[in-house]
Amino acid sequence: MLRSAALRLSSTFRNPELLGALQFTTAMPPKNAKKKEVKKETGLGLTYKKDENFGEWYSEVVVSGEMIEYYDISGCYILRPWTMAIWETLQVFFDAEIKKMNIKNCYFPLFVTRNVLEKEKDHIEGFAPEVAWVTKSGESDMEVPIAIRPTSETVMYPYYSKWIRGHRDLPLKLNQWCNVVRWEFSNPTPFIRSREFLWQEGHTAFATKEEADQEVLEVLELYRRIYEEFLAIPVVKGKKSELEKFAGGLYTTSVEAFVPHTGRGIQGATSHCLGQNFAKMFQINFENEKGEKAMVWQNSWAYSTRTIGVMVMVHGDDKGLVLPPKVASVQAIVIPVPYKDANTEAIFEACRSTVRTLNEAGFRAEDDLRDNYSPGWKYSHWEMKGVPLRIEIGPKDLANNQVRVVRRDNGSKKDIPMENLVEQVKEILSDIQESLFNAAKQKREACIEIIQTWEEFVAALNKKKLILAPWCDEEEVEKDVKARTKGELGAAKTLCTPFDQPRLPEGTPCFASGKPAKKWTYWGRSY
Amino acid sequence: MLRSAALRLSSTFRNPELLGALQFTTAMPPKNAKKKEVKKETGLGLTYKKDENFGEWYSEVVVSGEMIEYYDISGCYILRPWTMAIWETLQVFFDAEIKKMNIKNCYFPLFVTRNVLEKEKDHIEGFAPEVAWVTKSGESDMEVPIAIRPTSETVMYPYYSKWIRGHRDLPLKLNQWCNVVRWEFSNPTPFIRSREFLWQEGHTAFATKEEADQEVLEVLELYRRIYEEFLAIPVVKGKKSELEKFAGGLYTTSVEAFVPHTGRGIQGATSHCLGQNFAKMFQINFENEKGEKAMVWQNSWAYSTRTIGVMVMVHGDDKGLVLPPKVASVQAIVIPVPYKDANTEAIFEACRSTVRTLNEAGFRAEDDLRDNYSPGWKYSHWEMKGVPLRIEIGPKDLANNQVRVVRRDNGSKKDIPMENLVEQVKEILSDIQESLFNAAKQKREACIEIIQTWEEFVAALNKKKLILAPWCDEEEVEKDVKARTKGELGAAKTLCTPFDQPRLPEGTPCFASGKPAKKWTYWGRSY
Repeated sequence: MLRSAALRLSSTFRNPELLGALQFTTAMPPKNAKKKEVKKETGLGLTYKKDENFGEWYSEVVVSGEMIEYYDISGCYILRPWTMAIWETLQVFFDAEIKKMNIKNCYFPLFVTRNVLEKEKDHIEGFAPEVAWVTKSGESDMEVPIAIRPTSETVMYPYYSKWIRGHRDLPLKLNQWCNVVRWEFSNPTPFIRSREFLWQEGHTAFATKEEADQEVLEVLELYRRIYEEFLAIPVVKGKKSELEKFAGGLYTTSVEAFVPHTGRGIQGATSHCLGQNFAKMFQINFENEKGEKAMVWQNSWAYSTRTIGVMVMVHGDDKGLVLPPKVASVQAIVIPVPYKDANTEAIFEACRSTVRTLNEAGFRAEDDLRDNYSPGWKYSHWEMKGVPLRIEIGPKDLANNQVRVVRRDNGSKKDIPMENLVEQVKEILSDIQESLFNAAKQKREACIEIIQTWEEFVAALNKKKLILAPWCDEEEVEKDVKARTKGELGAAKTLCTPFDQPRLPEGTPCFASGKPAKKWTYWGRSY
Repeated sequence: MLRSAALRLSSTFRNPELLGALQFTTAMPPKNAKKKEVKKETGLGLTYKKDENFGEWYSEVVVSGEMIEYYDISGCYILRPWTMAIWETLQVFFDAEIKKMNIKNCYFPLFVTRNVLEKEKDHIEGFAPEVAWVTKSGESDMEVPIAIRPTSETVMYPYYSKWIRGHRDLPLKLNQWCNVVRWEFSNPTPFIRSREFLWQEGHTAFATKEEADQEVLEVLELYRRIYEEFLAIPVVKGKKSELEKFAGGLYTTSVEAFVPHTGRGIQGATSHCLGQNFAKMFQINFENEKGEKAMVWQNSWAYSTRTIGVMVMVHGDDKGLVLPPKVASVQAIVIPVPYKDANTEAIFEACRSTVRTLNEAGFRAEDDLRDNYSPGWKYSHWEMKGVPLRIEIGPKDLANNQVRVVRRDNGSKKDIPMENLVEQVKEILSDIQESLFNAAKQKREACIEIIQTWEEFVAALNKKKLILAPWCDEEEVEKDVKARTKGELGAAKTLCTPFDQPRLPEGTPCFASGKPAKKWTYWGRSY
């Protein structure tokens, strides 16, 4: 039984041409195909352990958990239904929230001309090396090459200039759900760093800086909720340094997550105040209430499918994915555990009726009544896919009018009388959601190291810590730290200056320059 | 007042560079910019009439109704919030329906390699001239050019081959919501023919032809509902001819709409049975229940933002858009009509409270309390945007505790006592939805001409009719008809063979070849 299951999950192609194509990609480790063969003997388990080989573990989990399929173009990935259901849950939440803020959805083209793309110099400098260019259609060369949007500031703002005339046209608040392309060459990773990804990008224009400032934080709070309330991942809200802020913007705020296993920070989502820089370049002016010509204040903000990768990295374990109940497309999987002499049909019927009861109560439950897999295989399969709760029904449960529930997050088991099913499942799912967040928070806290000196900084960096350090907030000093920490694992940089600042005694020196520190800032390596 | 309004709506750019860019596009008639200037004198009305210059009327309506903004790349358009709200309504309906059918959403990459794209020869022949190719990233040439998906059969099916092993893996039913690119050169038209558009594409695989056949029709019925129930547009369900079917498929079904003003048919959406053709090319095999190797049967099906263009063409009039209530993001606009001596604040408050009442009852209502526009300007503005129902509140209405409602579709007016507001608005909106469909159906029926001979065919074609003709169903004959009717307006072709067939007396000759006719088929010019 286990052997055939492993064959079914094997990721080698039957199509030799495709296998060839895959081997040329840098994204999928070629040895992966070979390693998978081992599973014929070992069954469903993962080949890699999270502690031992995080990179391989991650690739294996997203593939075996059926979230991702590697594609024959490096850096592009197939998002499978198990992923899309999570993305849609986040989308439904966020879309409803921004609609409450009177932000409206639109759709701007995928393409942008070179002229317009290059209008804001700092901005394009940040993106130019990664822009993909279309130069041919059919067999003909195009008159001029056309860029694929890496982000849509320059795509949209010429039209903001057209649509905005007077103060009554403000605020203008638009959002779009779309794909963007950044042809990066460094280390593609599913969800985290891919050449095409899905996101939303909000682009708003206001009459005053105050309104813009306020919205930046309102949206940042929605991003915090996506991470903390839905994905059960603690994040730090803060401001990016001058070096790390959005190219062409005034200031950038972000939610920053942390992956304890690799000791790397990861930018979760960003909410930028663009100031009046783009307004100047694209002539986005308006007549204010006094009849004077004024320039708008702009924001842009985005979160992407990267969110899902952070979730996998933080919660996943050596059995596979661990999905928080709020985003899991299957919250409870019901599995029959028949014995030789047992009344199989009665057990199956109990499974179906359990699913019905849970669905009617608003839970996302499914049964797995397949007759060609053993209960044990099914346990492993749904654990791999990260389903928060397993419900087993065997002859004894049937006789006692109960079910056995097993938690994915901590493996704990409990028998629940049928009459309390809905109530208890509700309680357990909510406890799982909370526990996942608390466990992740505890792990992150354990990684934070508050340091004062360069020596402490280097030591903490080597221990893969999330470093909180007093900093002079000078761009040259950040560049210098980057240069001094360059190495195989990548340089250290600022992650963010948290809004929530510990007390900074006057005269505290900057850990790197010795000048007076201005703020506590998080430093570390990052994705 | 009217002058300033016209200035505000004027579509000339303040940015001279952009205006220059626009003038190079073929999509936006350059004279448009000039013609708009006239509006400074004439106020809000349209420059063109639907009967007199349909093409210019259409361009003007989609721009003035704030659905579309022309973009500085020809054939690409900006979908504004007024459009996206309609698209989202259709999406919510369709997505829920296919989820009931257990079809799951996924997302495949935008890019495809030449190798894979060209695997199915008939298929790629149909798309090759329109494929956009990415050849550069940043300043570097790519090793091999990469295509942007014109549709995703070849993107997806290599992975179907990987995922499908045994009969238990079937059916495999996936859908994605995405953008596709077809770099066409003929006559770009907003919504109807654009180089990038939004759509859903479903791709399913079954063990048997019977299951595939059944799904083709189930999905086609959803497309019929989108047109008839939501967009209030009558469509004909039928089968495409061999010449017009999907490149590489087995057979194509479609819903066909008709635009009476231009006498052109328009393919509304298509549901294809691909047979086993792609399965063969991509080696999508499975072990059936008897343990034998078998090949899957596949379908693909799609509808796009074109739906919205058909709606504009069919329902719009010389005052602008006419939106069916089911898809209108604002179903009722409430406008205060104060007089000099009236209690303006009381009227405003009555407007607000009317909106509240309607919103609470589940209608999408808004007020327009702007103080810098006259009621007359507001009437024209919201008529231009196609809002189904206008609700006016003036001093007399206030005194009589009533509102005046004006229908967009037929201009009829009615006073409604406040206490009957919700009930009557419900009734009127539902009547508008029905009336729009009936009126469109009546107009279409009036255009259908049943013919028997070549002479009748040519005469009917010249009168821009939707022609129902007895046909021998031979590909060579369709090619011949195309050749014989070639001309400035485009050749005639088959639209579909309707499922609902009138009686065909034995021995009826084909109108074009004189051979025995096999079926009644719709012919005409088309978009």
